[in-house]
Amino acid sequence: MMKREVMEDSITMNGGDGPNSYTQNSKFQRAASDQVKVLLSNTIQEKLTIENTSNATNQQVFKIVDLGCSVGPNTFACVQTVVEAVEHTFKTLGLESELPEFQVFFNDNVNNDFNTLFKALPLDRQYMAAGVPGSFHGQLFPKDSLNFMHSAFALHWLTKVPEEVTKENSPAWNKGRITYVGSSHEVLQAYTEQFLKDIKAFFSARAVELINHGLLAILMPCRPEGTLPSDSIVMHILEVLAFALTDMAKEGLISEALVDSINLPIFIPSATEVKKVISNIENLTIERSEKIYYLPKKLSTPEDVRFCTVHVRAVTEGILCKHFGPELIDEIFERYSKKIEEFSKTLDYAHVEKMENLFLLVKRNAI
Amino acid sequence: MMKREVMEDSITMNGGDGPNSYTQNSKFQRAASDQVKVLLSNTIQEKLTIENTSNATNQQVFKIVDLGCSVGPNTFACVQTVVEAVEHTFKTLGLESELPEFQVFFNDNVNNDFNTLFKALPLDRQYMAAGVPGSFHGQLFPKDSLNFMHSAFALHWLTKVPEEVTKENSPAWNKGRITYVGSSHEVLQAYTEQFLKDIKAFFSARAVELINHGLLAILMPCRPEGTLPSDSIVMHILEVLAFALTDMAKEGLISEALVDSINLPIFIPSATEVKKVISNIENLTIERSEKIYYLPKKLSTPEDVRFCTVHVRAVTEGILCKHFGPELIDEIFERYSKKIEEFSKTLDYAHVEKMENLFLLVKRNAI
Repeated sequence: MMKREVMEDSITMNGGDGPNSYTQNSKFQRAASDQVKVLLSNTIQEKLTIENTSNATNQQVFKIVDLGCSVGPNTFACVQTVVEAVEHTFKTLGLESELPEFQVFFNDNVNNDFNTLFKALPLDRQYMAAGVPGSFHGQLFPKDSLNFMHSAFALHWLTKVPEEVTKENSPAWNKGRITYVGSSHEVLQAYTEQFLKDIKAFFSARAVELINHGLLAILMPCRPEGTLPSDSIVMHILEVLAFALTDMAKEGLISEALVDSINLPIFIPSATEVKKVISNIENLTIERSEKIYYLPKKLSTPEDVRFCTVHVRAVTEGILCKHFGPELIDEIFERYSKKIEEFSKTLDYAHVEKMENLFLLVKRNAI
Repeated sequence: MMKREVMEDSITMNGGDGPNSYTQNSKFQRAASDQVKVLLSNTIQEKLTIENTSNATNQQVFKIVDLGCSVGPNTFACVQTVVEAVEHTFKTLGLESELPEFQVFFNDNVNNDFNTLFKALPLDRQYMAAGVPGSFHGQLFPKDSLNFMHSAFALHWLTKVPEEVTKENSPAWNKGRITYVGSSHEVLQAYTEQFLKDIKAFFSARAVELINHGLLAILMPCRPEGTLPSDSIVMHILEVLAFALTDMAKEGLISEALVDSINLPIFIPSATEVKKVISNIENLTIERSEKIYYLPKKLSTPEDVRFCTVHVRAVTEGILCKHFGPELIDEIFERYSKKIEEFSKTLDYAHVEKMENLFLLVKRNAI
């Protein structure tokens, strides 16, 4: 039938809207999205091709999807930007009478908390909404059916941890670490290959689902050109989790084998790596590429440390919970918070200034 | 922008898959759906109009929705029947090479447990799936966009309890009762008007969403022609809840006012009432109408009583929980079970033999 790649089911942001939820702890992503709001809006108005296919009895439907939407609220803000930019484009072209109906699909993997997402849908929305469960590394929609696809802060998640890094007898065994920071060349190689395979699958699926001239906007964290993957400050902050876990193993609270076998399925690529994959996909063209540099707050106050801890907890708790069990989670993050405080004192802020997000607008060529 | 009627948010089948879940306690609905499976399949093959709109670059997409899908598994069985019948129709017409892709929407109100539904989606499905939260009494999809719409055992749910029946100073105040069984003429009138208003909204929305020649299949409980609404055995079984609640009020476990103010938003119409509403909707035509009579098991053994109790619990617990609080639910249904046992001894099975489900196939006329 159709190919379904199953995304590792633990990769899900924290549901609900409690103090550790993604809803309450995604302000970091929101700030970066706000930065690109104007860019997204302008780029749509510049690059959107409106084909006059409407007639008296068949009004056009403009179909939008946000891939890796999580539970909100960021996804609603992005979608609103897209809808308004499309409407503005119609109006600018004098096609106000042909304004389409909007249908918006919210996609994330099947373990995402869609119940929370649906309850948070804006009541005054100008679009019809639907949720689509499943991995965006496979086809989720009919061929030639989507007008605009969007994905923010989702593509750095891998479909799975590369198998080699979890096997004791493999040269890529990633003992005592949770990311590829400080790991062997083999570990880094395994992560890189998994990432390239995953985003190839992602862009190939989009090339099928987009209509002719359909657009795909991507926002994702990247590392600066010429730096090593393990130089990424994001990865360093995540790797601090391993320090807390190793301490807990030493104290006999968790087994060393469990610590050795956990790895986060995250990879921060360079823009060049991403763009090279797209250039090899038939029918896709990069229409715009922008790097958005940003300076995250320094980890200098207790509030900064708390902010960092709850953010990391919101995005990693699902994975840690599944691996270590829910009863240890509070302990892990109490220790993590202290380790982040220590880490912040040794942090070289030269690295921090190099953080960037990559914005790409990709067009599906007419075929 | 678009009109959104909000269905009373407590009308949701029990989520999850535990012992009191709808998933585990919807065999009654499943048995009736199985009865109509052949009817549904044959009617689709007889009435489906396939318009040859496909071309080399634009394969057709056949869009299906199940309205009021709950959490499964019945919805998956229905959808499978529809997909197979459509495929069979294409093959019979020698259009095998033009078989469409299928996109299936699962709709229920926003408090439905979509998380459970999505996790239960068949892994070997031949369709792309999406969930659509919202009241099916309003428009949920773009105009002219659905090929086939289906709704089973959902239309007897009202959008809300008619306001008059809950007001102490109203002539339609329904004191001490939970349905219109044994109630005054005014209560019955209020329920009837609410039902007619609701299904008019339902069919009007479908007339907008269906494509030309699109089909809508309905399966719903009806009462036999010529009988009173309050003769329905289904309603009698629900009304037994009021006996249990009244006892609890007498014992001081709950307030009398709370018992007086709860009513179930359910109405069992006659087929004629439903068909009259459809005949007044522009662009809809009834293509087929069948009554399916069935004999439910008699309530003669403890197992029958248990089966009846858990079934009623699965569909009413949400409403009762919201009204009385979760801590009283077990007590309510323990008492209900005993009341059903007493009730079964006095039951006139002449009524039971009169149960029927109405199957309708409605076509949207070309405009």
